[in-house]
Amino acid sequence: MSLPATGRSWHLASRPHGTPVPENFALREEPVRAPGEGEVLVRNTHLSVDPYMRGRMNDQKSYVPPFALDQPMDGAAIGEVVASEAEGLVPGDLVVHNLGWREYATLPARYSGPVPRDTSRPSVYLGVLGMPGFTAWVGLREIAGLREGDAVFVSGAAGAVGSTAGQLARLMGASRVVGSAGSAAKVELLTTEYGFDAAFDYRAAPVREQLPEAAPDGIDVYFDNVGGDHLEAALTAMRTHGRIVLCGMIAQYNATEPPPGPNNLGLMVGKRLRAQGMIVTDHEASRPEFQKQVTAWVESGELRYRETVVEGLENTPEALLGVLRGDNTGKMIVRL
Amino acid sequence: MSLPATGRSWHLASRPHGTPVPENFALREEPVRAPGEGEVLVRNTHLSVDPYMRGRMNDQKSYVPPFALDQPMDGAAIGEVVASEAEGLVPGDLVVHNLGWREYATLPARYSGPVPRDTSRPSVYLGVLGMPGFTAWVGLREIAGLREGDAVFVSGAAGAVGSTAGQLARLMGASRVVGSAGSAAKVELLTTEYGFDAAFDYRAAPVREQLPEAAPDGIDVYFDNVGGDHLEAALTAMRTHGRIVLCGMIAQYNATEPPPGPNNLGLMVGKRLRAQGMIVTDHEASRPEFQKQVTAWVESGELRYRETVVEGLENTPEALLGVLRGDNTGKMIVRL
Repeated sequence: MSLPATGRSWHLASRPHGTPVPENFALREEPVRAPGEGEVLVRNTHLSVDPYMRGRMNDQKSYVPPFALDQPMDGAAIGEVVASEAEGLVPGDLVVHNLGWREYATLPARYSGPVPRDTSRPSVYLGVLGMPGFTAWVGLREIAGLREGDAVFVSGAAGAVGSTAGQLARLMGASRVVGSAGSAAKVELLTTEYGFDAAFDYRAAPVREQLPEAAPDGIDVYFDNVGGDHLEAALTAMRTHGRIVLCGMIAQYNATEPPPGPNNLGLMVGKRLRAQGMIVTDHEASRPEFQKQVTAWVESGELRYRETVVEGLENTPEALLGVLRGDNTGKMIVRL
Repeated sequence: MSLPATGRSWHLASRPHGTPVPENFALREEPVRAPGEGEVLVRNTHLSVDPYMRGRMNDQKSYVPPFALDQPMDGAAIGEVVASEAEGLVPGDLVVHNLGWREYATLPARYSGPVPRDTSRPSVYLGVLGMPGFTAWVGLREIAGLREGDAVFVSGAAGAVGSTAGQLARLMGASRVVGSAGSAAKVELLTTEYGFDAAFDYRAAPVREQLPEAAPDGIDVYFDNVGGDHLEAALTAMRTHGRIVLCGMIAQYNATEPPPGPNNLGLMVGKRLRAQGMIVTDHEASRPEFQKQVTAWVESGELRYRETVVEGLENTPEALLGVLRGDNTGKMIVRL
């Protein structure tokens, strides 16, 4: 095929104050660069939008650099190779890479990962077998040090990370798995499809009241995707020597004022709690083990997942806003 | 000698609301029980008062049971054996044990530890070679996992735990040691006698302003004895993969309302910080190694310590209040 002359990509037009608005994003047409030596040109088919991207819209030092103003945004994506100057990749191959938020991407082949050509659902490599699934696995295995018999609480448990974390906890030997989610329908999903022992709607009543009912004997591991009231309630519910995985604090990503912290941190001393922040990219060495173990669980049907699919590149910003609002069930995907 | 018929002991007369008042304590005369088989009778010479005792005045479940109303209070003490029905202990021997807050104690010999008879300063076994010193050592070694080259911040650094923690950090290879204390005189002591690289008076200006000046390149380990504003400032100053030892939160021991938590806990995710609470009694297995290493440093003069001594059993409650106010420099001791 002849190469496309131009492609569209989302640029960061301005930085948001609080919740992002449409004016913060601009869809622009740009020339497509032909691949050089060792590179491939990819036509993206699936884009990932993830909560952590909100932080990158601010101009602040963090573990990933912020999006630059008037430059293409990026993030995980899956696409089909349309031209290759790299050994081992030919047109038609599927790859996962990090130049999302656009139609066409030219990148070194070594910055891409393989996706089986015959897979029926390539987007799984953006979800349960991608960054969110790996995050859940690392959090339980390497941060919490999950042990057989632990009681586990997962917040934001209907999301891509949370739904995987809850199911993995059970598969790894947890005695009880409890989750919170933001609607009655999601709560229903947790206890039916995902096999949580108990779940509650954190919008229906205070977490500090619902968590003790869902976990009357306390919790050993808290997988925190939310922060705020969830973290405070979890500190109270934790048992001695409990471990907290600080994975994300979506409750405050759009906050314009610093949120108050939990008023019961002193409990960490007496109960000897450990809380630890994590960024999954620190753990690349463990990825082969993750892929082997979790691929087997997905193939056997023991590990389930859902996707919320938004159609069309033009709807990518709205998809990100939807994730921050909790519109999604499972992984939020933009299909091009 | 003939055994005393009675002895005085401090009882908890009522539970405090906020800062304890004299009416919460009652000094009462009680019969002295003669030692039974395997027991010793000890005349206490030095009593320990420690911040953790404030928590025991409340009726709340914690890692040590609360003091019972109208019963003798307890805590670490050193005394001289005056009668023994136990093998290996004879009158005149010095022991460290846990039945403080009283003149005479009858206890099984196996609940006591030896103090060398020829020591010039037995009270050191309540301080740098006792619980506070062991707490500092465990916090750095086993909780923080201190590494050569780490920059360390210690709050409440003129106290018994803090002054030892700062010096041990240096002896264990820290590249920079910074401390906070509650007066100009204490700050002076930190940088002269204890060898801190920098120190500041947390009552003179906000910690969030002073800490970055004292540690311009950030900190790898924060040894927290204070909580509150110190913890919030430390989270901002922490470097990637920093570790926080949650040892105590003296700022809030007398609080009547739950104190607000740090408003920047989200930094723990991006910087992959780890915060862990500790209780020294979990770490008894390490005590021989602590005693060997730290005794050598005390004897060589590399590890210094101070004591604030209050005279007389009747002043024990006031000594505890003094510790909670920060009146002490180094270990607070009551000498009988």
